Amino acid sequence: MTILSSLGRASRSAPLASKLLLLGTLSGGSLVAYSDSNKKEDQQQQKKKKKVVVLGTGWAGISFLKDLDISSYDVQVVSPQNYFAFTPLLPSVTCGTVEARSIVESVRNITKKKNGEIELWEADCVKIDPTNNKVHCQPVFKDDPEASQEFSLEYDYLIIAVGAQVNTFGTPGVLENCHFLKEVEDAQRIRRGVIDCFEKALLPGLTEEQRRTKLHFVIVGGGPTGVEFAAELHDFIEEDITKIYPSVKELVKITLIQSGDHILNSFDERISSFAEQKFLRDGIDVLMGMRVMSVSDKDISVKIKSSAEVVSLPHGLILWSTGVGTRPVISDLMEQVGQGGRRVLATNEWLQVKGCENVYAVGDCASIAQRKIMGDIANIFKAADVDNSGTLTEDELQDVVEDINVRYPQVELYLKSKHVRSIKDLLTDSEGNPKKEVDIKAFESALSGVDSQMKSLPATAQVAAQQGSYLAKCFNKMEHCKEHPEGPKRFRTGGHHQFRPFQYKHFGQFAPLGGDQAAAELPGDWVSAGRSTQWLWYSVYASKQVSWRTRALVVSDWTRRYIFGRDSSRI
Amino acid sequence: MTILSSLGRASRSAPLASKLLLLGTLSGGSLVAYSDSNKKEDQQQQKKKKKVVVLGTGWAGISFLKDLDISSYDVQVVSPQNYFAFTPLLPSVTCGTVEARSIVESVRNITKKKNGEIELWEADCVKIDPTNNKVHCQPVFKDDPEASQEFSLEYDYLIIAVGAQVNTFGTPGVLENCHFLKEVEDAQRIRRGVIDCFEKALLPGLTEEQRRTKLHFVIVGGGPTGVEFAAELHDFIEEDITKIYPSVKELVKITLIQSGDHILNSFDERISSFAEQKFLRDGIDVLMGMRVMSVSDKDISVKIKSSAEVVSLPHGLILWSTGVGTRPVISDLMEQVGQGGRRVLATNEWLQVKGCENVYAVGDCASIAQRKIMGDIANIFKAADVDNSGTLTEDELQDVVEDINVRYPQVELYLKSKHVRSIKDLLTDSEGNPKKEVDIKAFESALSGVDSQMKSLPATAQVAAQQGSYLAKCFNKMEHCKEHPEGPKRFRTGGHHQFRPFQYKHFGQFAPLGGDQAAAELPGDWVSAGRSTQWLWYSVYASKQVSWRTRALVVSDWTRRYIFGRDSSRI
Repeated sequence: MTILSSLGRASRSAPLASKLLLLGTLSGGSLVAYSDSNKKEDQQQQKKKKKVVVLGTGWAGISFLKDLDISSYDVQVVSPQNYFAFTPLLPSVTCGTVEARSIVESVRNITKKKNGEIELWEADCVKIDPTNNKVHCQPVFKDDPEASQEFSLEYDYLIIAVGAQVNTFGTPGVLENCHFLKEVEDAQRIRRGVIDCFEKALLPGLTEEQRRTKLHFVIVGGGPTGVEFAAELHDFIEEDITKIYPSVKELVKITLIQSGDHILNSFDERISSFAEQKFLRDGIDVLMGMRVMSVSDKDISVKIKSSAEVVSLPHGLILWSTGVGTRPVISDLMEQVGQGGRRVLATNEWLQVKGCENVYAVGDCASIAQRKIMGDIANIFKAADVDNSGTLTEDELQDVVEDINVRYPQVELYLKSKHVRSIKDLLTDSEGNPKKEVDIKAFESALSGVDSQMKSLPATAQVAAQQGSYLAKCFNKMEHCKEHPEGPKRFRTGGHHQFRPFQYKHFGQFAPLGGDQAAAELPGDWVSAGRSTQWLWYSVYASKQVSWRTRALVVSDWTRRYIFGRDSSRI
Repeated sequence: MTILSSLGRASRSAPLASKLLLLGTLSGGSLVAYSDSNKKEDQQQQKKKKKVVVLGTGWAGISFLKDLDISSYDVQVVSPQNYFAFTPLLPSVTCGTVEARSIVESVRNITKKKNGEIELWEADCVKIDPTNNKVHCQPVFKDDPEASQEFSLEYDYLIIAVGAQVNTFGTPGVLENCHFLKEVEDAQRIRRGVIDCFEKALLPGLTEEQRRTKLHFVIVGGGPTGVEFAAELHDFIEEDITKIYPSVKELVKITLIQSGDHILNSFDERISSFAEQKFLRDGIDVLMGMRVMSVSDKDISVKIKSSAEVVSLPHGLILWSTGVGTRPVISDLMEQVGQGGRRVLATNEWLQVKGCENVYAVGDCASIAQRKIMGDIANIFKAADVDNSGTLTEDELQDVVEDINVRYPQVELYLKSKHVRSIKDLLTDSEGNPKKEVDIKAFESALSGVDSQMKSLPATAQVAAQQGSYLAKCFNKMEHCKEHPEGPKRFRTGGHHQFRPFQYKHFGQFAPLGGDQAAAELPGDWVSAGRSTQWLWYSVYASKQVSWRTRALVVSDWTRRYIFGRDSSRI
């Protein structure tokens, strides 16, 4: 069967001539006949299968591929990388706490255990054509004329999971003179860059001032990435570098520039101030309320917001880690589907791109444009008022409460903020007793505040992974749910939605702060910081690894660091 | 003392102004005074110390630094790399059996345990000026104007250990289109290159022929490096790649091109033929008696020596691993010291470069030009003939035998080839009985064959490491041996040589052949091949690691490969 199945595969991708050649090498005629009939069956099978094209192998793309039942779809993946990277550990790679190879896993390896085969092409998607259901791709091998021919793929369903790119906010000189931390290669480049700074600072013939400049590390952006890099760098210098570069120890300086008033401002206040105090003790300079005006190869020019004064800081290395920007292929698609001018693709609650039904977008490149409950309020009332009485009884309301909760996730957040348990608790008279019946006015005014709770989800790995996984599950039950829809009521058109909308579940977030201390914000408003949190971090990050291989490697890297320290060879 | 010693260091490298600034920051006057007197002592110490400049941190350079008593010299090291690489494991890095980081160790880490401090500069030596005892160096940071200023260093002793570079034998297109395997970066590039070949072969739109070309791996050179790479590549493909690229499995081909009649021709014949048979079974094409005429990005053009026919082979990737060439800085030095036209620097038996007494050369960049015993035969006879009788008695001969053996290492090899134990056994009459006395003619004719045993040492890690270590030991006893020379008699000028000449001790050599089999040639004409030899290889290579860190990492890499296989992510 191996020869036959490999023939089958070859015949799908190779032109007729070589197919004949291959068949010609088989000696037995009956074997050829068998192969032919087998092929026909295969082709019929193929015809039935819908073509799914996935763009990208980051958190969203991989979660989708991992959870998708590949046997029922013909899956093609286009990604400039043939691996998945565990990006939350990228800051650890910059200083060698963890090796780059330990946080990546081959995509083919992840998907090979599945009952089916995916096709993966190392290419960039350069154009999405939703009108013709096609994507145009450019292989990454630019220096090989044969292997860099543009090709196009047709799809029945397209999953866009290309992620975001760096956002320079148009600041001049950033692209040329700053490091970024989005890809594994970036982390490797930073690692070499940091060691280079130390080697440069030791060279003969430099002035003390020049040495200080080479050893001034600047981080722009006080989000989790910037803060974790500052912490890693501080540890690397304190624990390892000073032992082998003792003569320049005193010249090192780390500066963190933040435009807001606090670092880690997506976290709880207690965590922000814990981090700021820790950095103060560690000697990391945190400059808040600053805006970067421009960057050159020598200096970074910063405006102090309060005084409008502009100061210039000489630097040895800059990490730019502020926000996310849009990839050109996404901007182009947004123009085509009438979403021009937006920062990310807008999808509905089922992650379908608005304007094209068979295109889905997940992860950092997309954002869910939630439907306002106020826009549908009349329809909801009408659908609920089964007896057309103009008022809703308690029973009539009870029948739609669940559907409303599922269809409009902001309702749950609103109820939480009001400290009540159900919509029914909002419909009370002036004395606080539940009303027996409500008319449309009372219904509308009770729910009028709900839409204020609409929040767009952060651009994190957690969101992307949950979206990919959600979408795969929808795809797995696509046929079944066509007949047996499981979603909430369609208040406007009647019937039910095919699936329940995507709902994000926040499991908390970590901020490692160096010196074996971390801060964590966990569900239920639970905040913790310190050494024990670092151990929690270790266990969560080890358990979240995508394969046993990376899990073993990451844990052995951590152990290696404890025993031998971090390596500072310039490779 | 830490502040003071760091001040001391700073004052050596920084100009006067910053020195005053630094001293100004110390508050107590007495402390300053103490520091001053301390500094004077330091300076006197410095004056006494001779300046040793070491070029290169490969096998020879690192062995020298490891064994040198740094407290008695002022050591400065110039190397384009701040690490030492365990080069015999480079072929394992090309396919991910071992990670690059596992075979490198920071030079500063290796030397920091010593009682003293070395200065290391990441720079290339661009010119050696033996007339003025200076070397001119260019930092490796070409894109940083401040940190790429050329600087020069003065030396009392210079140790040249820069190694060799690739030798293309002037074959057109080799530099542009081939991979090499001398540095860690080369191995990393090959690893990416191999994975790229597979990714390219899968792209849509390629013909079967093009796919075959992409997956044709060519190795030029049947020495240990080429053979080991072929074996590694074969294992990688068989054990890992075929699992995740099943559709192109049948298209892969490995070809090894060797100009001689056998591969591994520096090994015992039994090993050569074992390797050839193993490769035959593995499906690795070994083309012998071939000469590469030219290389393009698509083809390699090869001349079959026996028929003078030229054939052209399309390729996906080529590794060029044939012989070693001369670095430009060495060619330039050879011109200066009257050694122009040679391939490597000639040294005497004490590793001193011929023509400059305080310059030493070790490792692949040098070769010992052994002194012929026949050139000194009259002087030896004269020195031995104490009573000036014109003949040597048994006792007179006995007195010089040891000195001759030590001074002319070829004697030992010659005696071995003649199956006799001593020079005296060569001086027999026609009946085979030892002569009582010999005249100069008989003495000359008995030793006339000795010089035929002069052999230049191979360009291996083993030779380089022994030379570096030997030289360090000479340096450690430099002062002592000036008064108490320990070398053999000077037959021409009288007295004794300061040191015994360098003598190479061969500990055998390995050739890993893939599939967990290896071949080994061990001292005493002992040859072994197979699985047990592979385990011997594992233990020898683990024990030879330069630090406990690399030892632990290499062993854990081997284990990881057994459990999880090799990773094929393209990073």
